[in-house]
Amino acid sequence: MFELIDHVGIAVPDLEEAVAQYESRFAMKAVHRETMESQGVAIAMMEVGVTHVELMEATGEDTPVGRFIAKRGPGIHHVAYRVDDIAKALEHVKAAGVRAIDEVPRPGAAGTTVAFLHPATLGGVLTELVQAAPGGH
Amino acid sequence: MFELIDHVGIAVPDLEEAVAQYESRFAMKAVHRETMESQGVAIAMMEVGVTHVELMEATGEDTPVGRFIAKRGPGIHHVAYRVDDIAKALEHVKAAGVRAIDEVPRPGAAGTTVAFLHPATLGGVLTELVQAAPGGH
Repeated sequence: MFELIDHVGIAVPDLEEAVAQYESRFAMKAVHRETMESQGVAIAMMEVGVTHVELMEATGEDTPVGRFIAKRGPGIHHVAYRVDDIAKALEHVKAAGVRAIDEVPRPGAAGTTVAFLHPATLGGVLTELVQAAPGGH
Repeated sequence: MFELIDHVGIAVPDLEEAVAQYESRFAMKAVHRETMESQGVAIAMMEVGVTHVELMEATGEDTPVGRFIAKRGPGIHHVAYRVDDIAKALEHVKAAGVRAIDEVPRPGAAGTTVAFLHPATLGGVLTELVQAAPGGH
């Protein structure tokens, strides 16, 4: 059902500084950038082979990432798994007792379709399901 | 330099319960189990394609994972990147200003060689470098 760890999301206070650090220290390249106003976040996807690190800066304090940083400090925010059929995967995990944040899949970054699962029923782990963009990989 | 997100480490209060949940909810299989007394942790590696989720239960309260759970609760503990030459990668990141927890690579789970990097210089992200076991993948 799950094909791969698609990416790990990391909450950072300053996106440009974080991108520069991941480039210089870890030799990762930023392969996509996007600001999602509806989610209150600006992101950069850093390539690590077929996986990615998603660096995330809040667009304001009263946003999910803004509140995360205020409460816990910067750090690992979520883990995302790649699935081939997100509607089916979401139904499966809900039927297995996982509480969904997104009851139906919604558009994510870079043309993907995503659904977040609530950490309350997953041992404190904010978990995302990601289906690739049509024609993507 | 970094080939892949090798795994994400998740601190759990009860390893067997967590393994059962990741199996039933996410259809992941436990492909390796190990207790590392020197690290104070019992782990199960759950397969997700070529990546893994490392579920980690502390063997006692006064252990790194025990202290992590006492302070922050269960949840995502670290992210690990696969490298082909861990000695070289560790030297590179140290030269770039990253503080190492393991100054030299040490044995990890399942015959791997690993080095942890301190979250203080990595935006709160406990980061691990992993070189595959000889003959492993």
